[in-house]
Amino acid sequence: MDDALPSFSFAVRGAVADAPGPEELRTWDDALVLVADDGEIIGRYDADDPIARQIVRERADDVRQLSPNELLLPGLVDLHIHAPQWPQMGRALQVPLEVWLQKHTFPLEARYEDLEFAKRSYRDLVETLLANGTTTGLYFGTIHNEATLLLAQLCLELGQRALVGRLAMDNPDECPDFYRDASTRAALEGTEAFIEDVRALPGNEKATVKPVVTPRFIPSCTDSCLEGLGELAEKTGAHVQTHVSESDWEHNYVLQRHGKSDTQSLSDFGLVNRHTVLAHGPMLSAGDMDHLVEQGAAVAHCPLSNIYFSNAVFPLRAALAKGLHVGLGTDISGGPSPSLLENARHAVHSSRMLEEGVDPSIEGDARGTPDSRVDFVTALHLATRGGGIALDLPIGSFEVGHRFDAIVVDIAAPGSNIARVLEGLSVADRVQQIVFNAARQNIAEVWVEGSQVSGFRHK
Amino acid sequence: MDDALPSFSFAVRGAVADAPGPEELRTWDDALVLVADDGEIIGRYDADDPIARQIVRERADDVRQLSPNELLLPGLVDLHIHAPQWPQMGRALQVPLEVWLQKHTFPLEARYEDLEFAKRSYRDLVETLLANGTTTGLYFGTIHNEATLLLAQLCLELGQRALVGRLAMDNPDECPDFYRDASTRAALEGTEAFIEDVRALPGNEKATVKPVVTPRFIPSCTDSCLEGLGELAEKTGAHVQTHVSESDWEHNYVLQRHGKSDTQSLSDFGLVNRHTVLAHGPMLSAGDMDHLVEQGAAVAHCPLSNIYFSNAVFPLRAALAKGLHVGLGTDISGGPSPSLLENARHAVHSSRMLEEGVDPSIEGDARGTPDSRVDFVTALHLATRGGGIALDLPIGSFEVGHRFDAIVVDIAAPGSNIARVLEGLSVADRVQQIVFNAARQNIAEVWVEGSQVSGFRHK
Repeated sequence: MDDALPSFSFAVRGAVADAPGPEELRTWDDALVLVADDGEIIGRYDADDPIARQIVRERADDVRQLSPNELLLPGLVDLHIHAPQWPQMGRALQVPLEVWLQKHTFPLEARYEDLEFAKRSYRDLVETLLANGTTTGLYFGTIHNEATLLLAQLCLELGQRALVGRLAMDNPDECPDFYRDASTRAALEGTEAFIEDVRALPGNEKATVKPVVTPRFIPSCTDSCLEGLGELAEKTGAHVQTHVSESDWEHNYVLQRHGKSDTQSLSDFGLVNRHTVLAHGPMLSAGDMDHLVEQGAAVAHCPLSNIYFSNAVFPLRAALAKGLHVGLGTDISGGPSPSLLENARHAVHSSRMLEEGVDPSIEGDARGTPDSRVDFVTALHLATRGGGIALDLPIGSFEVGHRFDAIVVDIAAPGSNIARVLEGLSVADRVQQIVFNAARQNIAEVWVEGSQVSGFRHK
Repeated sequence: MDDALPSFSFAVRGAVADAPGPEELRTWDDALVLVADDGEIIGRYDADDPIARQIVRERADDVRQLSPNELLLPGLVDLHIHAPQWPQMGRALQVPLEVWLQKHTFPLEARYEDLEFAKRSYRDLVETLLANGTTTGLYFGTIHNEATLLLAQLCLELGQRALVGRLAMDNPDECPDFYRDASTRAALEGTEAFIEDVRALPGNEKATVKPVVTPRFIPSCTDSCLEGLGELAEKTGAHVQTHVSESDWEHNYVLQRHGKSDTQSLSDFGLVNRHTVLAHGPMLSAGDMDHLVEQGAAVAHCPLSNIYFSNAVFPLRAALAKGLHVGLGTDISGGPSPSLLENARHAVHSSRMLEEGVDPSIEGDARGTPDSRVDFVTALHLATRGGGIALDLPIGSFEVGHRFDAIVVDIAAPGSNIARVLEGLSVADRVQQIVFNAARQNIAEVWVEGSQVSGFRHK
């Protein structure tokens, strides 16, 4: 019998759920997920399938049996993290954007020239994100090649899948003297060297850490910088990330400077393609969205950060209806929570507030934008497979052929805020409980590329 | 020297903060708070004050020295909790209100006839709230006297300050047959008996647990029930709680039935006074607010629940500007988090979204309601002293004469999501970190009436 079994490294058995589409929740009361030596998911069976029963019988030691309180979910994919801003999380949020940038954020980012500072801060950040179930992070670094490469190394070392960008910002009109690329050439050469260095990192043979072309946003960059970065993206095939139509100010700045929208401008510079992730986007027009759909580019929806810096809510459901690729971002530290699940809740909240409107002095009929709300299924999709699609990576669901990036969530973990329910719940009900109330304490295990990387939950 | 010292039971020394007013944050880098045997705060000194130095020298064993990562804050006051709804937290939030009530909530509340069920559910709830730093809870129970008295007993036993209401709901037009007071008389007699029973509870000599007159909301009650409850409130001096102008439907229902607003109607029934707490209120008119200010009544602002059930945002800052008493409520389970700190963040978020507006298709100038935002100071005030003022209780700050209801927050606790900051922060900065990112794991100690009641953090 033994040679009839598929070859695998280990299996996980128990309740499983994923959300492969924005309105599609798949649940299994008792499934068996098979993982190969190289971290690929090579099988998924109902536990009463004959093959599953044979595996459980003959290779019991290689089967991780979940407890009745545990649930296997895809790992969380955070599409927008300003890594250097971590030390100011949850501070300075009461000040205007200009003060936030000039007095707090730019001086903080400038400190990453100091590699000791960078190492301590980045380690605490990556450990915190892993502890919260973030198995893939898309990071903005700083203009410093060394510190940003150190972030990439830390992700490799700690076991997080990551895409890391060395920031380009060379526009003296918008960037301070103390924190700016010395020249356009410095920005472009620094970016190109960074791409090569990340790809050559020892231990990165499987490219679980990738480099990203990263203009901060149009206002921070000269046209020649943007043009050069577009050429680099084409030449290297690296991912691209930046901000898009984030706020009234930023959106109008680009209209004034380039006579067109962010999206059109970035596209004309060669920065919008299937491997582009654009953060925010509440001010994207319908035409902008259509263009992003055509190019296969994605939006990193950052609902919590948008409350502080975006002047409006990203029209998520309208974007999804167009087929736009959308995932979720924490936007550390513009968004003050490192938990992608907390941001998933906020995606639901903001969508509901867009639908209902906010101003009670307006009559009920005239208040709000109908058909804007999404529910926990869409939120889970955004936090998992939506991120995987955005990055064009085989992660975010339990599809055979995907990498095994996953979390085990324990709804009854010590220190949990999830109600101890007194009778059986469906897997879908438990998923909803998790989306609305799970915290770091509930993330019992974290797996990336088939390897367990947890151990930071209680750190 | 010794007899020169004030008489006290114990003292806490370290960083301290409170927010006695909506825009007033008080911080002490190193203070000594003195607590008497009976739980009253009888002194507050800077640590270098001669009396403080003498106390530290001569009664070192009675001084709890906080660590550099710990901060003493007032205990959190949750002004709106539907205790019986705890088992459905974080579920059924995607359905319309009518389905939520009829299919989920009423059947669940009806189950509290079963005292074993009630005991397990209520114990888990109160322990969870204490673990999250909620030192005072204002509870809606059910129509069942026994189960609701059991909730009051549990609060006494577990050490939480509480105000508990036996629900009155006798209107057959709006309440289902399986969950309704059998008659108006049953509602009124049940309420009166409950008030007496809570006041007579063994161990409740200091009245740390109080009874509350609790019409569910106007739609659930007949006019004679509301009238009788108003008379009971007057006769017994008990607190009053109900819902007010929560949503378009509810607000308009009362206008149709009584030809006046909720506020005016409740007031005419004798249910609006200095000891009244009204939940929600986004649809309160300016005139309604003025009337509440005149009567000294309070609003329990429930920003998270309002996202699901209120169609608009409560105009918090306008209410505060009028001098309206406002505190915070979780509205378990309409709001899916038991953490009052999470609701404090939502108070900030919702106020910002009201100020900015949400619809990006509206031009920036026309979007939003200016001067609506509040910051973390107001949020902390609402969660602490705002609740104390609403209840007319001497709690919620470190004023001499207040009861010692307090929490010790550890920003570096194991499992914390607060960034490990690499240098010294001001106490105000730490308060902001706590408001935006502290979770259950950060609540290191919980004190009510001068007694420590923690021990549930990791349960």
